[in-house]
Amino acid sequence: MEQHVSDLPSGPLDVYRRKASFPWKEMRLFLEGEEGAAFKQRVFAAMENDPLFSRTAGEDVPVERMRELTFLRVKQLFRYDFLTPDEALADPWKTVVLNDCLGMFDWSLAAKFFLNKGMFGATVASGGSARHSKYVHGVEDMTTFGCFALTELSHGSNTRAMRTTATYQPSTQEFVINSPDFEAAKFWVGNLGKTATHALVLAQLYTPDGACHGLHTFVVPVRSLSSTLSRRGQLGANVTTGRPRAQVRDPKTLRALPGVLVGDMGKKLGQNGLDNGFALFNNVRIPRENLLNKTGDVTPDGKYVSPFQDPDKRFGASLGALSGGRVSIARMALVNLKLALTVAVRFSAARRQFGPKGGEELPVIEYQLQQWRLIPYLAAAYALERFSKSLFDNFVELRVGQMTGQRGDRQAELGRELHALACSAKPSASWTAQRGIQECREACGGHGYLAMSRLGSLRDDNDPNCTYEGDNNVLLQQTSNYLLTWMDAVRQDGARVRSPLGTVDFLDEFSRIRDGRFTACAVDDCLDSTVALAAYDWLVCFLLEESHKRLERHRTLGQDDFEARNNSQVYYCRDLASAYVERCCLQRFHEWVRHEDTPRRLRDVLGKLCALYGLWSLSGHMAALYQGAFLSGREPARLIQSAILTLCEQLKDEAVALVDAVAPPDFILNSPIGNADGQLYKNLWSAVTQGHGALERPSWWKEFCSDKPAVGSLRPKL
Amino acid sequence: MEQHVSDLPSGPLDVYRRKASFPWKEMRLFLEGEEGAAFKQRVFAAMENDPLFSRTAGEDVPVERMRELTFLRVKQLFRYDFLTPDEALADPWKTVVLNDCLGMFDWSLAAKFFLNKGMFGATVASGGSARHSKYVHGVEDMTTFGCFALTELSHGSNTRAMRTTATYQPSTQEFVINSPDFEAAKFWVGNLGKTATHALVLAQLYTPDGACHGLHTFVVPVRSLSSTLSRRGQLGANVTTGRPRAQVRDPKTLRALPGVLVGDMGKKLGQNGLDNGFALFNNVRIPRENLLNKTGDVTPDGKYVSPFQDPDKRFGASLGALSGGRVSIARMALVNLKLALTVAVRFSAARRQFGPKGGEELPVIEYQLQQWRLIPYLAAAYALERFSKSLFDNFVELRVGQMTGQRGDRQAELGRELHALACSAKPSASWTAQRGIQECREACGGHGYLAMSRLGSLRDDNDPNCTYEGDNNVLLQQTSNYLLTWMDAVRQDGARVRSPLGTVDFLDEFSRIRDGRFTACAVDDCLDSTVALAAYDWLVCFLLEESHKRLERHRTLGQDDFEARNNSQVYYCRDLASAYVERCCLQRFHEWVRHEDTPRRLRDVLGKLCALYGLWSLSGHMAALYQGAFLSGREPARLIQSAILTLCEQLKDEAVALVDAVAPPDFILNSPIGNADGQLYKNLWSAVTQGHGALERPSWWKEFCSDKPAVGSLRPKL
Repeated sequence: MEQHVSDLPSGPLDVYRRKASFPWKEMRLFLEGEEGAAFKQRVFAAMENDPLFSRTAGEDVPVERMRELTFLRVKQLFRYDFLTPDEALADPWKTVVLNDCLGMFDWSLAAKFFLNKGMFGATVASGGSARHSKYVHGVEDMTTFGCFALTELSHGSNTRAMRTTATYQPSTQEFVINSPDFEAAKFWVGNLGKTATHALVLAQLYTPDGACHGLHTFVVPVRSLSSTLSRRGQLGANVTTGRPRAQVRDPKTLRALPGVLVGDMGKKLGQNGLDNGFALFNNVRIPRENLLNKTGDVTPDGKYVSPFQDPDKRFGASLGALSGGRVSIARMALVNLKLALTVAVRFSAARRQFGPKGGEELPVIEYQLQQWRLIPYLAAAYALERFSKSLFDNFVELRVGQMTGQRGDRQAELGRELHALACSAKPSASWTAQRGIQECREACGGHGYLAMSRLGSLRDDNDPNCTYEGDNNVLLQQTSNYLLTWMDAVRQDGARVRSPLGTVDFLDEFSRIRDGRFTACAVDDCLDSTVALAAYDWLVCFLLEESHKRLERHRTLGQDDFEARNNSQVYYCRDLASAYVERCCLQRFHEWVRHEDTPRRLRDVLGKLCALYGLWSLSGHMAALYQGAFLSGREPARLIQSAILTLCEQLKDEAVALVDAVAPPDFILNSPIGNADGQLYKNLWSAVTQGHGALERPSWWKEFCSDKPAVGSLRPKL
Repeated sequence: MEQHVSDLPSGPLDVYRRKASFPWKEMRLFLEGEEGAAFKQRVFAAMENDPLFSRTAGEDVPVERMRELTFLRVKQLFRYDFLTPDEALADPWKTVVLNDCLGMFDWSLAAKFFLNKGMFGATVASGGSARHSKYVHGVEDMTTFGCFALTELSHGSNTRAMRTTATYQPSTQEFVINSPDFEAAKFWVGNLGKTATHALVLAQLYTPDGACHGLHTFVVPVRSLSSTLSRRGQLGANVTTGRPRAQVRDPKTLRALPGVLVGDMGKKLGQNGLDNGFALFNNVRIPRENLLNKTGDVTPDGKYVSPFQDPDKRFGASLGALSGGRVSIARMALVNLKLALTVAVRFSAARRQFGPKGGEELPVIEYQLQQWRLIPYLAAAYALERFSKSLFDNFVELRVGQMTGQRGDRQAELGRELHALACSAKPSASWTAQRGIQECREACGGHGYLAMSRLGSLRDDNDPNCTYEGDNNVLLQQTSNYLLTWMDAVRQDGARVRSPLGTVDFLDEFSRIRDGRFTACAVDDCLDSTVALAAYDWLVCFLLEESHKRLERHRTLGQDDFEARNNSQVYYCRDLASAYVERCCLQRFHEWVRHEDTPRRLRDVLGKLCALYGLWSLSGHMAALYQGAFLSGREPARLIQSAILTLCEQLKDEAVALVDAVAPPDFILNSPIGNADGQLYKNLWSAVTQGHGALERPSWWKEFCSDKPAVGSLRPKL
């Protein structure tokens, strides 16, 4: 069974591997499953053996070359075809695993591949109808390359305020796509910069009667394909009217179509292999059929028809594609955190600094401070490992319900609950990863500041997870709004609080929980996750009640809903949403540890990780816990803090094995200071001395020697 | 008087500028002084008018080109000679202002310039004697270019464990510099990668009797100069012995000298204009005179002589040069924070998103959440502005004492106190900046993720401030160690606690303070900084006592000092050091606001910033405040939180003017989304569409069109 998990090279880390209470391979197989591990192994092996995926840690690759390399690698992925649509349907989790694998190599690659296949292809498949199947097929064989264009230069979070228009003209049976001005240019569109041939453009749909029907999605060709492809792709002259439609300017392709000003946004903080782009549409005509018509359509003579009576509901459904994105982003953030921890933990076990007088220097992981900096993030990674998997399962349940046409209350409730979860899981995971990566960078000292450590690119590539598919702070409001809708049921005697996923069911015991207090009396009591879980139950109840009161107070002062909500975010609604998702993540971890399928040999270490995650997360809410008198006096905080330190200490001998269980092969990790052999200095020295031109004198050496400056010759006059 | 402060262009930000309670120019002149402002203006104008300093926001510059550009710009700085040694001596603060100016443009430039002039030149001047003056002169006219080589591949924080040796040979009157193995290679040395001709190498000094006298500093030539220069620089054959000494291999220069393996470390997360390097010395011979001999010397026949009896004291003195570095780094971090805030605050005042139903969209700075994310950092920037200036004054006092030969108790005490301050100010400022920049990045949403926003390079360039000249976490231990030495005086009846800078004098009232409680009863009470200051007095006393107890407990359990200290860091000593420096920063801000020289018109806004800084920093210690019963019940936390939100709201109309007062010209800021005209979208659109090749199809377009992948052709076999 362990054939899909290669042995790790022997070296300075062996001592910690031996100290671990469990075999890391068993943990790996428990986390990934045999099939998952085998699939991963196949993907990694293919990449490692393919020169196109070869790279040097820390090398300086120009942005344009990164764009090119990423494109070539994406093309190669079509040849590898690691996961056919049928295979993905049979085991949806494999899509996540593939995204993990590509992302561990380079997030630009994963993004470029899945923005085409997922954001474009899957959105067309789910939002369109039979008439759009050619685009779905085109995406599968790369005859088309797609992107998803929602954000505009002046609008991101406020999606409803997008200003691009699609005006229907019955005379030609076309939509005219137009950007009223440059502030309405589509912006930040992944794949649009250099490669997309088609964009899914979200635009305000206008019918000939002048009515606006809100945002709809249109397939808009933006770059020409080859002349052959352009015929297939419905470009060229409209046979009925003879008027030009998005005419091919240059049949040799990849030039912008007339009326489309499309370009690349240039360098970003990270993910520079992905060509984010902008587009300005100057009355571009597309056939009526290019409207994705699942949630609303226009008849040939220009009447708007929709299965949804309520435009708000239609809008909600059309943005449904974004929910899966948030679940996916939470996972991506976790993957980044795991990579960074692999580097930092191995570094900390190999790096020695200071020591007792006269004794040998100690590996830095032996220091309390280093443990406390890193090991809680390791616990968070394991918590998020479970949480992201379970969220994906919830998402699959929702999608299956949608695809099988379930429209009952439970399906609607499930949608709302998952929305609340995803809108808080993404912030929680992306911030945890962002802070964790920064801590890893600092914990590796100067060596972590070398580009070849990869900690910089992890930080840079993770950063947009805090922003796209909804700014974290804005998203958290969605979650608190959801939770506040339960307040009535909470206060009403006899009403039950029950949700499809059960994440709010504990609110049923609101009064009992609110009256509860922290009861642990010894550090040992706190080493079990039940303590943190009980505290979180209380915390969510407390923050829910306080947020509700706060909102009511603002309303009493005459503020409208918009104002009242805005003025109840900090310390109230925002904390409520965070506490809710942390509680949920903790609870699922807690149950997982105790699940019968969890191997006995792993329960002990998983239980410690769970308890640590709970207490450490909780310690971010100490003010509220004391404020609401759940804690009082000196002892509780001391117990929680001591328990955190105790757990860190207990886990420091497990840390190397815990990262081994989640680490990719060295080739993928691509960080000489994080190699599995633990030969920190040999690997680093080897990489540094072999760096491009490292030992050469600079090309501009004469600038030093033959043109000495005349000091003060340019000194400004006073 | 305001002639040195140019007007700002009119635009969308005018509305906020008009709302401010004070004229931003007055604030600027108050902060910088007339002469400082004029000096800054001269430096900025020279750079802006010089094509060599021209650049495009967000452009993709290869690392090698960055190294070259930075070198050329440094060379140009010699021509500008903005600050002569005499001028710097007459007004030492101007060195800081110059560093600010260069750093605002690009920290690599500032680092490259000052590592040569300061770390090399000033260290030679202060640590050497008359025989080294040629190096000091060489640095001034760029005939030599220096670097400071302390860190080794396997040792950073533990400076005493450096393994490079310098063994004296009386027969040739030379030191032999040697790296025992590659793990002892000098590493991370700024300027060493491509340009340094001389390194100050810290090595263990061995005399012929085999005795090791600890780390000493040696001038070691590493790259050859031109043949003319090499004669001046004492290279070539030793006339006495005829044996080759660091012989010039290639008289055309900048090649490594024999026995020196020197190279460039490659790409870093940031500051890529600076060539950090490594060097491995293979028995390189240097003249006896190259030892910087102020704190210890070797006689021609090989006897070690030193004015210090205690090697620990000598070691401390030889590392004294690093203390000024930490004061300087705190300032550098502040500069980064100011730049990031300028971008984020102007963005937030110009960007509109959402709004009341039917109304206009609101500038995002109008939202409580956005205010709370940014404005406390603005308050911290003003606090650090004052703090960094006052720390520098303290440092000048120390240096003047050293230079005038003061060796009394007060001078020694001053050194210890400043060491404690610098070792906590650097962590506090660099972390505040790092977190603040990240918050600014996120607060600007996607647009903040564009390289041209500059927030990425600010984050990357600030990051090493957390690490170099001492890892932040390690440095904080120095501060807590200092504070703990006062515990005896605190507990002893009648003993006075008095330090030269008075930062611990409040401990004199330890008992009274420890018995104090939070007494504010209304939000209004908390809008004054006295509330936070009193809380900090209590907090430092509490943490000092707790840390002391914790240490004692560990010792009682049989741990030695090393262990006991290591196990008392988290939640105790580390928090103690942080609280101490925050208190000190707050106190100096508090006094500044009330100082008679502070203009009346500015006191109100500065007072609010001071109160906000205090409460916001304090809110990071809520657990301790409750734990020690300084706070109890629901009200105190609510008051503190409400006061923070109230102050943010009061300051949001001041925010634009507050950043105007500290912002450099647009040319220096180099961020289209942060321009002073507030034309966010016009500037961004203009920059994006004019980006290099933005509108062109990619050079590799044929890869898309003429070589379509055969799907699955490479699919791995199962």
